[in-house]
Amino acid sequence: MEQEVPWVHPPEPVTVPMMPLQRLLRLLPLFAGLAACTTPAPPDPLPSWNEGQAKTAILTFVARVTTPGSPDFVPEAERIATFDNDGTLWQERPTVEVVFLLTRLKAMAEADPALARDPAVKAALAKDLAYFHEAGPHAILELFGVVYGGVSQDSFIADARAFLAEAKDPATGRKLTELTYQPMRELLDYLRSKGFLTWICSGGMREMMRLVSDSLYGVPPEQVIGTALQLTWKEQDGKWILWREPKILTFNDQAAKPVNLSLALGRPPLMAVGNEGGHGDIAMLTYSGSRGGPSFQMIVDHDDAAREHLYQEPDSGSLKAAAANGWTVISMKNDWRTVYRP
Amino acid sequence: MEQEVPWVHPPEPVTVPMMPLQRLLRLLPLFAGLAACTTPAPPDPLPSWNEGQAKTAILTFVARVTTPGSPDFVPEAERIATFDNDGTLWQERPTVEVVFLLTRLKAMAEADPALARDPAVKAALAKDLAYFHEAGPHAILELFGVVYGGVSQDSFIADARAFLAEAKDPATGRKLTELTYQPMRELLDYLRSKGFLTWICSGGMREMMRLVSDSLYGVPPEQVIGTALQLTWKEQDGKWILWREPKILTFNDQAAKPVNLSLALGRPPLMAVGNEGGHGDIAMLTYSGSRGGPSFQMIVDHDDAAREHLYQEPDSGSLKAAAANGWTVISMKNDWRTVYRP
Repeated sequence: MEQEVPWVHPPEPVTVPMMPLQRLLRLLPLFAGLAACTTPAPPDPLPSWNEGQAKTAILTFVARVTTPGSPDFVPEAERIATFDNDGTLWQERPTVEVVFLLTRLKAMAEADPALARDPAVKAALAKDLAYFHEAGPHAILELFGVVYGGVSQDSFIADARAFLAEAKDPATGRKLTELTYQPMRELLDYLRSKGFLTWICSGGMREMMRLVSDSLYGVPPEQVIGTALQLTWKEQDGKWILWREPKILTFNDQAAKPVNLSLALGRPPLMAVGNEGGHGDIAMLTYSGSRGGPSFQMIVDHDDAAREHLYQEPDSGSLKAAAANGWTVISMKNDWRTVYRP
Repeated sequence: MEQEVPWVHPPEPVTVPMMPLQRLLRLLPLFAGLAACTTPAPPDPLPSWNEGQAKTAILTFVARVTTPGSPDFVPEAERIATFDNDGTLWQERPTVEVVFLLTRLKAMAEADPALARDPAVKAALAKDLAYFHEAGPHAILELFGVVYGGVSQDSFIADARAFLAEAKDPATGRKLTELTYQPMRELLDYLRSKGFLTWICSGGMREMMRLVSDSLYGVPPEQVIGTALQLTWKEQDGKWILWREPKILTFNDQAAKPVNLSLALGRPPLMAVGNEGGHGDIAMLTYSGSRGGPSFQMIVDHDDAAREHLYQEPDSGSLKAAAANGWTVISMKNDWRTVYRP
């Protein structure tokens, strides 16, 4: 299975063949800066990754599917890689959506006493997890509807933009948009340099991720799939606008990911990358693996208490699925030289 | 508003400046095939379009938004053009979906007498339009659910592929996939050569359009938005698969188009092209026009009884919207030199 990765061994030194002086002189300009030198080894495309099984697995897979003539060669049109965002491309503790939800809910409850008396709103603002454990996930989704819906699409986007410009991690005081993982940014850039389209498929609100996907990850808005509210097209004050209904259309997590990927792409991605922590990406990675022909899946293990966070699923569901399906596990602690983008 | 279109006037002839013979000879190879000749005018990117207001409007708009330094210059990342398919990129009388529906419904009713007794199925097979006029659009959508749902996504795609390989226009006996419009293929190619992403946003079933979007139009599957059924991710015989529920998730017509474009792109397209006939594209073109900055919209008028079909909305809704909003109307009869792709 293992195939040689071109840049693991630096290429042979280039030596200028012996030639009559006159011919050599004529060729000289062609060798500007190169004659009598050795070609430098290509730069490491993943400098923030330690040498190890994860980095080797990435380089080996990319070489397998992009080397012309390789039995597993995949044409560019089929090179689609999908990435979860929260916990895979950036820190998910706390998740941006939850900070946004609580910030906006507090302001809304202060302005509207009736809303403040709603048991779910009270529980959220008191961080009463027992309430939501009892009430079930629909209670949280309804809060998302209250906070994210009931406004025009344009006004929500303006609000989300203002929030993202300021939002900070309460623990460190760092801006939430600064907590992206440097090794993943290198991986995205590397894949694109090899003809891949890079997509994001994550539980975050679609419009919020799209505000930062290009600047943080080089991913254009139309390659972002996320949680979405129901939208309606309606006339308001003589203008046609998109209106956000206070109702979730799709919560893009777990089993919704293959569904929404199929709706967007029409076929399983060649590569899928997620993280353990909430079983959020098992279905997406399984869907990628159902592709006929080669495919590649990776799971980030949040095992780095010192540099990021340590959290593991009680049942180790994602890591067990990785072992059962041959997915590559990325140990944040061991595989990443750097965690955050400088 | 009108700006000069570069290729309307052929460039000035290139003349080789006078130089000492020796220098001239040394430069000769650089001018291979060019010296002492005039540069030919760039080829017409839209040869199947007659000269006229539609062609001029296209060339003028593209020059406005792609010429660096133009006050209306739009960066490549924002150059998104969306096209309706049925009646805009290919013939919609009959629509491929209706031929598929009736073909498959007939076979299913023959195999299942209970289904054959269903009043909606009976009406569809008898082409009893009065029944559906009475029952309302949900009755048709339910039939779509029966025919398109209740199977795995993979098996539906295989069935749709087999259908498209054979399906013929009953009137002419030509294959349905051959009834695409040559001027539109030229327009798609031209826009891509100018850095546009070309998307399809049409009422057709998403998976069916994706089977032919690349070969017919050069549009990859992930740039196709269409009608979709509800999908579920489920385990079957020890394998995880996508299952098509017999229920419409979105019927991608009229007001659903801006909604689904927003879900897919996150912002209005720079350019939108549809057709009159069923008011299907008014909302999509209005959404494109709501973009801040320049935008461009076109409506195909099916006014060519001799070469294609003549059909007009009783209330001329699409043409009235075009007049009210400054959209360009494409007269199939007058603006197109050729209709079908040879």
